[in-house]
Amino acid sequence: MRTRENRYSSSMRIGDTWYRTIWPTDDRQAVEIIDQTLLPHTFEIRRLETAEDAAEAILAMRVRGAPLIGATAAYGVALALRKDGSDDALHRASETLATTRPTAINLRWALDEMATVLRPLSPRDRADQAWLCASSICEDDVETCRGIGEHGLAKLREAAGRRGEGRVNVLTHCNAGWLATVDWGTALAPIYMAHDSGMGVHVWVDETRPRNQGAALTAYELAEHGVPHTLIADNAGGHLMQHGMVDLCIVGTDRTTAAGDVANKIGTYLKALAAHDNGVPFYVALPSTTIDWTVSDGIAEIPIEERPGHELTLVPGRTVGGELTSVEIAPPGCRAGNWAFDVTPARLVTAFITERGVCQASAEGLATLFPEKA
Amino acid sequence: MRTRENRYSSSMRIGDTWYRTIWPTDDRQAVEIIDQTLLPHTFEIRRLETAEDAAEAILAMRVRGAPLIGATAAYGVALALRKDGSDDALHRASETLATTRPTAINLRWALDEMATVLRPLSPRDRADQAWLCASSICEDDVETCRGIGEHGLAKLREAAGRRGEGRVNVLTHCNAGWLATVDWGTALAPIYMAHDSGMGVHVWVDETRPRNQGAALTAYELAEHGVPHTLIADNAGGHLMQHGMVDLCIVGTDRTTAAGDVANKIGTYLKALAAHDNGVPFYVALPSTTIDWTVSDGIAEIPIEERPGHELTLVPGRTVGGELTSVEIAPPGCRAGNWAFDVTPARLVTAFITERGVCQASAEGLATLFPEKA
Repeated sequence: MRTRENRYSSSMRIGDTWYRTIWPTDDRQAVEIIDQTLLPHTFEIRRLETAEDAAEAILAMRVRGAPLIGATAAYGVALALRKDGSDDALHRASETLATTRPTAINLRWALDEMATVLRPLSPRDRADQAWLCASSICEDDVETCRGIGEHGLAKLREAAGRRGEGRVNVLTHCNAGWLATVDWGTALAPIYMAHDSGMGVHVWVDETRPRNQGAALTAYELAEHGVPHTLIADNAGGHLMQHGMVDLCIVGTDRTTAAGDVANKIGTYLKALAAHDNGVPFYVALPSTTIDWTVSDGIAEIPIEERPGHELTLVPGRTVGGELTSVEIAPPGCRAGNWAFDVTPARLVTAFITERGVCQASAEGLATLFPEKA
Repeated sequence: MRTRENRYSSSMRIGDTWYRTIWPTDDRQAVEIIDQTLLPHTFEIRRLETAEDAAEAILAMRVRGAPLIGATAAYGVALALRKDGSDDALHRASETLATTRPTAINLRWALDEMATVLRPLSPRDRADQAWLCASSICEDDVETCRGIGEHGLAKLREAAGRRGEGRVNVLTHCNAGWLATVDWGTALAPIYMAHDSGMGVHVWVDETRPRNQGAALTAYELAEHGVPHTLIADNAGGHLMQHGMVDLCIVGTDRTTAAGDVANKIGTYLKALAAHDNGVPFYVALPSTTIDWTVSDGIAEIPIEERPGHELTLVPGRTVGGELTSVEIAPPGCRAGNWAFDVTPARLVTAFITERGVCQASAEGLATLFPEKA
C-alpha cells in the first residue's frame, strides 16, 4: 500500500491529504484510482495501464458511481489510444468499456463524448487529444458537482429553517459522495458544503446491501471529513421517518429518464415510498450527464443490472485480529438474487438538484433548466 | 454439538429428524432449545436450567420470534419454581423474564398466563403445575400455527388461481417460520402446507439486516424442508413487486394493536408500502396472542427495542476455511443505530391470517373473529 497526494485541486481529504478519485500519472502512461473494493479497511491506489484495466476496474467496482464510471471510461479510451490511434482501436476500446455495466448512462455518455471528439481526427493526433478530452470530462464533473452542492445547500438551509433548532438530519442511500464522482460528490456535496459552512448536519447512512457502500464508502467519507453520521440498516429509514427523525432525503442516480423517473441503487424506491408516506422531502442530486433523454418510462425502459449472488451471501470485512476476509452468511448452496438498481417513479421525487439549479422531477421541470434538450 | 430427536409430535424436520424448537427434558430438570444464534452453520442444542438461563436465551436471541419467546418465558417460570415455589420466586422470575425484550407482547402474555394459573395455588403445588401450564402454552401454540397455516393456505390457493400457471411467488421478511414458534411457524405455515400439498410455491427471502434472520433462519428452514426459495437483499423487494415477480407477501408480527397496526421486524413497513404501491396483497399471519388489546396507535404506543450497534457493523458467518467468525464492515469507531422493529399501519395490511380465520386489519375486522375481546 502506498499513498500519494495527487496534484489536482480537490476538495476532499483522506487523513491530511487531498484527493480526487482518478488522475493521470505525470508521464501519461497510466491513470491511478483509489481501489474502492478495499475500503474502508485499506486505502490503496491502483494503476490502470490499458482499456482492459479500466474495464476491469469498472466491472469489479473498484470505481463505481455513475460520474466516476464515466470518467474512468473516458480515461480507458485514452489508455487504448496511447500506442494505437486507429479507428479499430477506438472502436474496440469503446465496446469493451461500454459493456461493463448496463444501467449507469454516464458510461455511454462519456464514450460518446470521446468518440465525437476523436473520430474526426487523424489517428496520430488522437492520443494527445484523448488525454485532454478525458481530463476535460473530469474537470466538468468537478464543476457540475460543485454546482449541485451549492444548489443543494439552499435546500438544506430551508430544512434547517423548518426545523428551527438542532441539527438537520439527512438520510442518504448508497454512496453518492466524492468517491462516486471525481470530486465533491452529488448527494453529499451539499452536505459537505453545509458542514463546512458551520451548519449543524447529521447524516443517516443506509448500509446499502448487498455491497455495503454506505458502511464502506459513505461512512468512511463522512468520517474523514468530520461530518456527524450514524450507520443504519436499510430497513430502518421508514421507522426514522415515521418518528420525525429525518428532515430530508438526498440520493444520487445512475440514470434519470426525460420524464423524471430515477434509476438508483437498489432500495432507493423503498426510501422514496417512505418519504412520500411521511411528508419528508426526497431529493435526487444529479449531474445532467445522468439524464437519458431517449427514455421516458424508467420501470419499463431502463435495463437493471443483475450481479452475482455471492455479493449478497459472502460479506467482506475485517476480523477482530485485523485480517481481511469474507464470511458466508447463508446456508450452503443457497440461491441469491442480486439486482443492483431499482427505479423510483418521478411522482415520489420532490425535486431534482442539478448543476443548473433545482427543478421538478418531470419533463416540464427538466425543460425549465435544460430547454436545449426538451 | 449433539443432536437428538425430541419426543413431541412435530411437523418440521432438520435432516432426517423431526424437531420442535423447545422441549422439557424427560426428568424435568431443564428445557432444551436449538441455539438459533449458531444457525445456519451449526446446529446445536442448548440446555436451560434456570429462569436466568431462559432470560439470557431470549435476550441473546438464541430463541426469538414472538410465540417462541412466550413459550421460553413460560418454561423459564417453571424452571424458577422447581426448587422454590414461593410468591417471591414467582414474582422474581416473571420480572427477570419480562424485561428481556420490550416489543413482543407474547412475552408478557405468557407470563400473565403462568401467573394467573400459579398464583392461586399453594407454593408446593406450583412446580408441577408450572410444567403443565408451560407445556399447554406450547401445545396451544402448535395448534394455533396449524390453524394459521390452514387459513393462509386458502390465500395461497387464491393467489395461484389469479396467477394461472407457474409457481406462486411469496415474499417474506425476517423469520416467521417454525423457528419463531414452537412448531409450524406463522407466516411460513401456509407455505409449508402449500408445498406439502403439491402446490408450486417459491419464496423470496428477505435477508433481514441487521441480524440476517432471513439468510440464517428462513433460508435454512426452507432448504431443510425442500421449499424452493431465493435469498434477496432487503432492498430488492420493491423492484420485484414493480415487475410482477411477487404474488403476495406474508409476514409475522411481534405485537398487533386492537386497531390493526402491526409491529414486526424493522423493514416490514417498507415492504408493506411497496406492496400497497404495486397492488400486491400484504398479509400478516398472527396468533391472537400477539394482539395487544390495550393499545390502538402502533406508531405512538408500541415501544420499539433498540439493540447494540455492533449487531449491524459486526457480521457473523463462516469463512471459506470453515471457521465461524465475525467481520467488521464499517470504519473504526463508526456509530450505528439499531432499531429492531417498525410499525406498519393497518391501512397497508390487506388482511390478518389468524388461527380463527382471515379478517380485515381493523378493530371491526378483529371483532368479527374475536368478539369476546372487542
